[in-house]
Amino acid sequence: MENKRLLFLQSFIGKHFTGSPSPFAHWLNGKVISVEEKAVQFEFEIRKEMTNPVGMLHGGVTAGMIDDCIGVNFMVLGLEKFYPTINLYIDYFNPVFENQTVIVTTKLEKLGKTIINIKAEVTNKNTSKIVAQASANLALSDFKIPS
Amino acid sequence: MENKRLLFLQSFIGKHFTGSPSPFAHWLNGKVISVEEKAVQFEFEIRKEMTNPVGMLHGGVTAGMIDDCIGVNFMVLGLEKFYPTINLYIDYFNPVFENQTVIVTTKLEKLGKTIINIKAEVTNKNTSKIVAQASANLALSDFKIPS
Amino acid sequence: MENKRLLFLQSFIGKHFTGSPSPFAHWLNGKVISVEEKAVQFEFEIRKEMTNPVGMLHGGVTAGMIDDCIGVNFMVLGLEKFYPTINLYIDYFNPVFENQTVIVTTKLEKLGKTIINIKAEVTNKNTSKIVAQASANLALSDFKIPS
Amino acid sequence: MENKRLLFLQSFIGKHFTGSPSPFAHWLNGKVISVEEKAVQFEFEIRKEMTNPVGMLHGGVTAGMIDDCIGVNFMVLGLEKFYPTINLYIDYFNPVFENQTVIVTTKLEKLGKTIINIKAEVTNKNTSKIVAQASANLALSDFKIPS
Repeated sequence: MENKRLLFLQSFIGKHFTGSPSPFAHWLNGKVISVEEKAVQFEFEIRKEMTNPVGMLHGGVTAGMIDDCIGVNFMVLGLEKFYPTINLYIDYFNPVFENQTVIVTTKLEKLGKTIINIKAEVTNKNTSKIVAQASANLALSDFKIPS
Repeated sequence: MENKRLLFLQSFIGKHFTGSPSPFAHWLNGKVISVEEKAVQFEFEIRKEMTNPVGMLHGGVTAGMIDDCIGVNFMVLGLEKFYPTINLYIDYFNPVFENQTVIVTTKLEKLGKTIINIKAEVTNKNTSKIVAQASANLALSDFKIPS
Repeated sequence: MENKRLLFLQSFIGKHFTGSPSPFAHWLNGKVISVEEKAVQFEFEIRKEMTNPVGMLHGGVTAGMIDDCIGVNFMVLGLEKFYPTINLYIDYFNPVFENQTVIVTTKLEKLGKTIINIKAEVTNKNTSKIVAQASANLALSDFKIPS
Repeated sequence: MENKRLLFLQSFIGKHFTGSPSPFAHWLNGKVISVEEKAVQFEFEIRKEMTNPVGMLHGGVTAGMIDDCIGVNFMVLGLEKFYPTINLYIDYFNPVFENQTVIVTTKLEKLGKTIINIKAEVTNKNTSKIVAQASANLALSDFKIPS
């Protein structure tokens, strides 16, 4: 069976994901770097409104980017039912400053009948330093994803 | 010693925290409900740009609200040095929809020399259901908070 | 319907849970303090073989006690299917020493169709200090619990 | 400077770590597979007393093995001060049965002045399946490690 959602996302490689059905994703304004079923990669530029009082990328926005990319990776699996996030764990390692760019890479770790685990890593494109690492579990719901 | 940051935040009780030094906090646009050293409470209205593809509050924005309120609770402790977040753990329980309001309540659990632990709970004001619970650890840095 | 597992555990209140079907629980040798469907409380005495190189309760044993009590709390819910632990998160706060006693208290936070969340708190009975706090998610499996 | 603790542990490669200063480590009875400063690998055989009521490796014992190996990896860094574990996060993927063997591999992710992050992965040697993945943060204390 053709995976339409995967093909759709792949059509945005190298571009901002303006076709996202997620309003928050538009605010994050990520650029699609690479997409396959088991891994996706996005880039995000750090705008002033994404920073904290000391001028660094706000940890809450980092969390937002991670959760959004994990959601995209889930979507390209092509499943029929929606799997909401059950829990999200993040380790923060190094700061990022305004106007720098981060790369978020996700990786499918487990694809179970009930539970999906996806990990994420965030790196600073300008310094190559690791910014954060994360793990999320998603659980099957009754909610059908509209095609 | 007078805790100026606590008094400043308390001056916003019942109002949006327009005096926040955090650009991302302005985007979240939280209203201050109550503030003391060991606990703060904010309300956030869910705007369309905070939602995911299925019309619910995006888990990444929930994380952003949690991390922001934990940061505020840290700030009102009145410490001289900055404690960046080391890790953030979130359990997601129930969805929230556009135009609903969530209440984020934080609580200082541990105030150590090196490590601070703050927990958070998010509830849906419209339904009284719990939306998420979280725990974060912050660690002492050399960075002095500008007064 | 009578909850046989709850009644069985309650018959051990004030005693070591020698009737546990869990071999590891026998090694932990917990004493049942209180039991209801939504919360259980156990006490554990710290033996030398539970300590780390600096004479404190080993963080891995703390994790073992937490996971075991969460498992007991799940069992007394009286469900037919087994819910394995999907993830466990622990914050460590204060040390415990050999021959001291810890109290582990669990609390059912969410009882969903697919996901159950149970939290735990560990305190030092000798000092009343908090030792650790934890959260675990359990997910429905096909495995039927033998009656 | 010679890293004595690293050399000591390396002298046990291929053998059970009978020289461990940790009483709980003796109960776990791990065999040292490989050791370097940034990664250690241990094997553990699953004995009956390590199992849960349904005959699988108890999640609490898995946590114990993970925490113990993370502690060993910390020790071979050769630092003077003790860094207690601040938090431990574990995802559980697949069960392990009595008499099977698990391999625990740790990896130093961050070596900061105040915070150390070490990750761990547990695999089932008999089936090659992943059993669990984990992340822990350790924080600097005033406690000097006895030489």
